[in-house]
Amino acid sequence: MDDRTQAIHAGLQAIVGSDQIFTGVATDRWSRDWTGQFEGMPLAVVRPGTCEEVAAILRLAGQYHVPVVPIAGNTGLNGGAYGADSILVSIERMNRIREIRSDARVAVVEAGVIVAALDSAVAQYGLTFPLTFGAAGSAMIGGVLSTNAGGANVLRYGNVRDLCLGLEVVLPDGRVLDLMTALKKDNSGFDLRDLIIGAEGQLGIITAAVLKLHPRPVFHATALVALEDLREAPVLLNAFQDASGNAVTAYEFMSRSYVAGYEKLVPTVRRFFETSYPAVLLVELATVRNEELGELLETVLGDAMERGAVADAVIAQSDMQRQEMWALREAAAELAFQRHPVIDTDIAVPLDRIAEYLDRIPERMAVIDPGFTDIAVAHFGDGNIHYTVWPSKNDPAVEAALRAAIDGLAVEMDGTFSAEHGIGLCKLPSMARHKNAFALDMMRAIKAAFDPKGVLNPGKTLPGGS
Amino acid sequence: MDDRTQAIHAGLQAIVGSDQIFTGVATDRWSRDWTGQFEGMPLAVVRPGTCEEVAAILRLAGQYHVPVVPIAGNTGLNGGAYGADSILVSIERMNRIREIRSDARVAVVEAGVIVAALDSAVAQYGLTFPLTFGAAGSAMIGGVLSTNAGGANVLRYGNVRDLCLGLEVVLPDGRVLDLMTALKKDNSGFDLRDLIIGAEGQLGIITAAVLKLHPRPVFHATALVALEDLREAPVLLNAFQDASGNAVTAYEFMSRSYVAGYEKLVPTVRRFFETSYPAVLLVELATVRNEELGELLETVLGDAMERGAVADAVIAQSDMQRQEMWALREAAAELAFQRHPVIDTDIAVPLDRIAEYLDRIPERMAVIDPGFTDIAVAHFGDGNIHYTVWPSKNDPAVEAALRAAIDGLAVEMDGTFSAEHGIGLCKLPSMARHKNAFALDMMRAIKAAFDPKGVLNPGKTLPGGS
Repeated sequence: MDDRTQAIHAGLQAIVGSDQIFTGVATDRWSRDWTGQFEGMPLAVVRPGTCEEVAAILRLAGQYHVPVVPIAGNTGLNGGAYGADSILVSIERMNRIREIRSDARVAVVEAGVIVAALDSAVAQYGLTFPLTFGAAGSAMIGGVLSTNAGGANVLRYGNVRDLCLGLEVVLPDGRVLDLMTALKKDNSGFDLRDLIIGAEGQLGIITAAVLKLHPRPVFHATALVALEDLREAPVLLNAFQDASGNAVTAYEFMSRSYVAGYEKLVPTVRRFFETSYPAVLLVELATVRNEELGELLETVLGDAMERGAVADAVIAQSDMQRQEMWALREAAAELAFQRHPVIDTDIAVPLDRIAEYLDRIPERMAVIDPGFTDIAVAHFGDGNIHYTVWPSKNDPAVEAALRAAIDGLAVEMDGTFSAEHGIGLCKLPSMARHKNAFALDMMRAIKAAFDPKGVLNPGKTLPGGS
Repeated sequence: MDDRTQAIHAGLQAIVGSDQIFTGVATDRWSRDWTGQFEGMPLAVVRPGTCEEVAAILRLAGQYHVPVVPIAGNTGLNGGAYGADSILVSIERMNRIREIRSDARVAVVEAGVIVAALDSAVAQYGLTFPLTFGAAGSAMIGGVLSTNAGGANVLRYGNVRDLCLGLEVVLPDGRVLDLMTALKKDNSGFDLRDLIIGAEGQLGIITAAVLKLHPRPVFHATALVALEDLREAPVLLNAFQDASGNAVTAYEFMSRSYVAGYEKLVPTVRRFFETSYPAVLLVELATVRNEELGELLETVLGDAMERGAVADAVIAQSDMQRQEMWALREAAAELAFQRHPVIDTDIAVPLDRIAEYLDRIPERMAVIDPGFTDIAVAHFGDGNIHYTVWPSKNDPAVEAALRAAIDGLAVEMDGTFSAEHGIGLCKLPSMARHKNAFALDMMRAIKAAFDPKGVLNPGKTLPGGS
């Protein structure tokens, strides 16, 4: 260990105590991501217990010009928490739910609180923190805010951006920015909160937040709907929303190949439909009171079948059947990562163009790699497609070309190459290729204004360095 | 006219044509605000017809170091469009609704479109652009986005920030930033859209937007509810929301003095209650389908009366009675400005502390000016109070002290001095006094990054100059 590293370690020790510093193999839990794509030895992992300790770490890092990478649940998909040769600041010990104000429907939490744990804690008040996705049992508030996470309930409740009222942020130079309001309206100057949400730890480290809670739905109605033509899906969604007064919580698309893949993965599974259809939708309505949701589903589906929009439909008759339907949808990650190499994406297009995108993309894949195979699922109501491709061979050039084609068509169709997973390291090439050049200029200018020394999470999010 | 002014006029003429430049008395319509508080002779008013013309104007202004002030409907309350010695850029000619995509529930509009006109245009599709407030018949999209306007429907639909998907913005140096996506999810880098929304024209001039539309409610149920204790109001709001599945569109508070003031202003008005109460709430539920909203109101109100939370209630039995109830609430501006001097404010506190704020504020007023009188209304569901005070005499020092006390108590109670009207010129002292110093630093750094020459709207929003 050289003198500088020793001095940094000594400085860190003085801040958090020797118990909360990890080096070498002891950093394994934080220095490798679960997808296995990003792994690198940090200078040290530190686990501060307070916002002030985070601030002191950043001041120390600035003094030694050493990069700092914040890490929360380590469930990101794009390498945003990769921290080779950096101080990895794990916020996991800052995991207190400071306050639940049930009348105001607000929770005040530290950044290390696990997403699903918050939802459990507020359930006793008949409330929910509705953000949910595969990794909600591990992901932490600081991480989901820094990536503006989405998931399966965005249609009803918005991204996590829409669930956040206030933030506490340690700026790159160690100043603590207190934006911890619980206000629904605050027009006092520029919107720093939304700038920091989704900034992937480039502009500050989030240490606490004030979050919105919602009434916890107690009645659900769930159905699988088969379509011959996905073009019917937007109209059908509007029909469900209108009939239920916007009670749709999930509207999830699965491709024919996805359903087939699932039936192969779980051969014993009961099949919902006798034949296979080009498109299957998982629809869920939920309310806090029983307003005959099932009946409502039946009426809308009956009308849609009469005019030929829907080929077939199954309405869950029990909670067990509801779980089976969700199991089908939630196998996406398992299906995707069972074979390698795999290209996992999170593009978005306007939701009335999803069908067109899925019609057009296979041709582009075939031109590059005629032997490719694919599956697709979508948070349909958000226009957000997880299109997964398995190249027929392990060739980085082919893989890069396939990725570029997937992104490219999304952007051509007024969409984005990054709907919910963020940029991190993985999508820097996409960002360089497709992001509006002036927007990138302004992002770089903002980064320089917040972090002139480039201490926080350097080399990510913004292509071409910061 | 000096040489420089002549050169600027010639440059502007080359960009927009001589028809679209106004000087001297011809600028009156733009150079004086409707409150009569801000008036100043601009160098010229120009009315560009395209985004490119706006860009050319900004480039010219940069060349001559002359300030540019964007102006839309000129309905702001805080002097944000005050433009003495500046080029006032009126976007009123850019008033095309480019596209209404009813299936996707999205409208693409230019910044000069009038708020109420957009709502009328989408009504034929059974949709609404739900932003509404007193000046919605004059205010324009560019203006409401730049101030993140709120109003009476925020409880249900959010501020205009929540209604905006994409923006076209001319940056201070004349570059056009195209963020015109219609996506519900886009995590490709920093959130420039939300940074520009509410930035009061400091960071760019908004020339077009992609806006969200909502299903147009067709069934309404409206009631006036009298409370002896405003502390019951948050609980009652939750009861209405839960029972109706979040169908509450308005939950508006009126103080005893407000109701008395209205009855004095309109002596012929039918009184809703036989006695006067400390707090009256206007509650409105709305849906796209008839779900016996009236019955629902009755049930919730019946329960609340039984447990003594509600003193009295009147449910509108006709559309006419509904209009009468709204007339009562909507007289706030007329009531406020009938006497001068008047202090009109838009503070916010957490909604479960509104009652406490209104209990405590009169004492602070009385200490400064024992002869003061006041009224209060509130967008209760948003925590947003319009507290209006008439000082007993015309003394600027007293007025300033009263303003400071109103702001100060809001901030002490975890609130804000500016919930929805923005900062402009009027609230620079509040901003200097109460805004977090680090937040102000970061705002100034962002301003410098976007507008290093300080061309756009200088001397506003950020105290201490930009």
